[in-house]
Amino acid sequence: MNTTFLKACKGEAVDYTPVWIMRQAGRYLPQYHTVRSKGSFLDLCKNPENAAEVTMQPVDFLGVDAAILFSDILVPLEKMGAPLEFREKQGPVFPTPIRDQAAVDQLGIPDPEDDLGYVMDTIRILRKELVGKVPLIGFSGAPFTLATYLIEGGSSKTFFHTKMMMYKNPALYHNLLDKITDCTIDYLKGQIVAGVQALQIFDSWVGVLAPCDFAEFALPYVQRIIKALKEVSKLPVIYFANNGGSLIDQSLTSGADVLGFDWRVRLDNVVRMVQGKVALQGNMEPLALFLPPDKLEKRIQMVLDEAKGARGHVFNLGHGIVPETDPEQAKLAVHLVHTLSRKTQ
Amino acid sequence: MNTTFLKACKGEAVDYTPVWIMRQAGRYLPQYHTVRSKGSFLDLCKNPENAAEVTMQPVDFLGVDAAILFSDILVPLEKMGAPLEFREKQGPVFPTPIRDQAAVDQLGIPDPEDDLGYVMDTIRILRKELVGKVPLIGFSGAPFTLATYLIEGGSSKTFFHTKMMMYKNPALYHNLLDKITDCTIDYLKGQIVAGVQALQIFDSWVGVLAPCDFAEFALPYVQRIIKALKEVSKLPVIYFANNGGSLIDQSLTSGADVLGFDWRVRLDNVVRMVQGKVALQGNMEPLALFLPPDKLEKRIQMVLDEAKGARGHVFNLGHGIVPETDPEQAKLAVHLVHTLSRKTQ
Repeated sequence: MNTTFLKACKGEAVDYTPVWIMRQAGRYLPQYHTVRSKGSFLDLCKNPENAAEVTMQPVDFLGVDAAILFSDILVPLEKMGAPLEFREKQGPVFPTPIRDQAAVDQLGIPDPEDDLGYVMDTIRILRKELVGKVPLIGFSGAPFTLATYLIEGGSSKTFFHTKMMMYKNPALYHNLLDKITDCTIDYLKGQIVAGVQALQIFDSWVGVLAPCDFAEFALPYVQRIIKALKEVSKLPVIYFANNGGSLIDQSLTSGADVLGFDWRVRLDNVVRMVQGKVALQGNMEPLALFLPPDKLEKRIQMVLDEAKGARGHVFNLGHGIVPETDPEQAKLAVHLVHTLSRKTQ
Repeated sequence: MNTTFLKACKGEAVDYTPVWIMRQAGRYLPQYHTVRSKGSFLDLCKNPENAAEVTMQPVDFLGVDAAILFSDILVPLEKMGAPLEFREKQGPVFPTPIRDQAAVDQLGIPDPEDDLGYVMDTIRILRKELVGKVPLIGFSGAPFTLATYLIEGGSSKTFFHTKMMMYKNPALYHNLLDKITDCTIDYLKGQIVAGVQALQIFDSWVGVLAPCDFAEFALPYVQRIIKALKEVSKLPVIYFANNGGSLIDQSLTSGADVLGFDWRVRLDNVVRMVQGKVALQGNMEPLALFLPPDKLEKRIQMVLDEAKGARGHVFNLGHGIVPETDPEQAKLAVHLVHTLSRKTQ
């Protein structure tokens, strides 16, 4: 198996910089649409054969150094007892937002095998298909990010209801986060048992928090999850705090082996700040995949140069690849990361 | 006149920390709705008496140390020749996006008095009404932020078309930005002549740019504007790069006297970075105005403490006050900034 990705996560020596792409199994690939057209988005998440198929699609096509489980961060919330719908153009919707203690009390803690067996089955299928290829990354949302969907009833621009709960009823907020955290620990432990070889925790919306609120309302739950995982496993854990450029010093205490960064930060500044305590993942602007090849090469070289001196570097985009991307440009980017980093090692 | 705000902008000694609030003339005030109900949002911007009235409303009610002209960053674009509509729930819309050279060529440079006289008249009315009270802040959008509206045809989540133009047709992008910059220089010079006493440049969307793209596609135009203003005036200029926590070192070269910050950054880190080269403005989380009074006081004290050692500090929210805010809480916050900062001077 190609272990370059796992080695970079652990800060071990590698021959080249490994790369994977957030949302690499997704809408920019025509072969994804073929599978997706068989049903709804949630149908795809819940069908292990199909979820495994779309997970595999980019592995061979792009030549990436890791596969990431195809699923959605919200599926465990549905099994906590919060009905979930994906609506065209609107995205995920929880028609009954969680905003009082009674609603929190009604949430349960799903069992990974009994309630989320389709995820665990997908992982088991993938481990067989990936033999001799690349490692499999499992994932979850971070508790703050998951909570925003439950409290807002879906996506949000202002996160008004979430912040109202934080500021006006912090006890209720913490009760909800405790429960989501318990669920997430079980869910990720289940993924480890099923066979994932690394884990990423997506904190997609944490960038809307002031640093003092991050310390009080988000980070402690990430720390608790990673501590619990580290008690049962040595698998590398990646914490991706999207738009978290002002939260780096705090994120260093998350317990993660790797911190993921969006494209807003300069990795050379991050290298100086983290002083070899963690490896870094990221962080090319996703739309840079639309640059002409010569400029794309320069941009990739810039990211590689900025990451020099890191304890380890996993190349990635700073956010998910967008559906309009030419798959050939994504493939070219992976190739360029490999060849340019071999030269500069 | 209360000159505390102007002194803080210039880094001169003050008895207390001055404060104003972004969107202080706005929807959280019942008296605003009374005036606004007379017509559309654009009608209000274009009626000098009404625009002056809503500008004045928070000055007496809140006890802030500056007034800010009621207008919208997009009004000069309309006069460049890009029809503008404000649609309910959708916000500003330019039905004909600017995406090719012919469209750029058709844009003109409006004359401040001939084409935007309603803004200049509002300023003249306000200077009379503000005699003996507080200074008047004028403003514009920054060229990058203004360009996104023209290129996207309104607000955006991904800024896809803007980045496509930057990456695929940079010459066209720069032609457009040149024209917007020329327009903005004339517009702000017009505001100076009409009587504003400070200027803020709002770069509301610049936080979606990677630092290297900020350097190439946004900052040079801000620098050009401020340089042109400084050739004709010594008025303080505030540059507010929203979500620009990773752009601070570059923003220091903007030429601005004051840098404004959103709530994501810690001002104590900023104080260390800027080393007395500029004054700071900001940056309390806007929704912290929903905290109970004791916690609101602590939050304000935290922001004041973090700003200690700054060349000058103008207290503000990190973004606009939200419509759901209790006006009494905003008033309390202004009072707390004044009293707490007197203690700690």
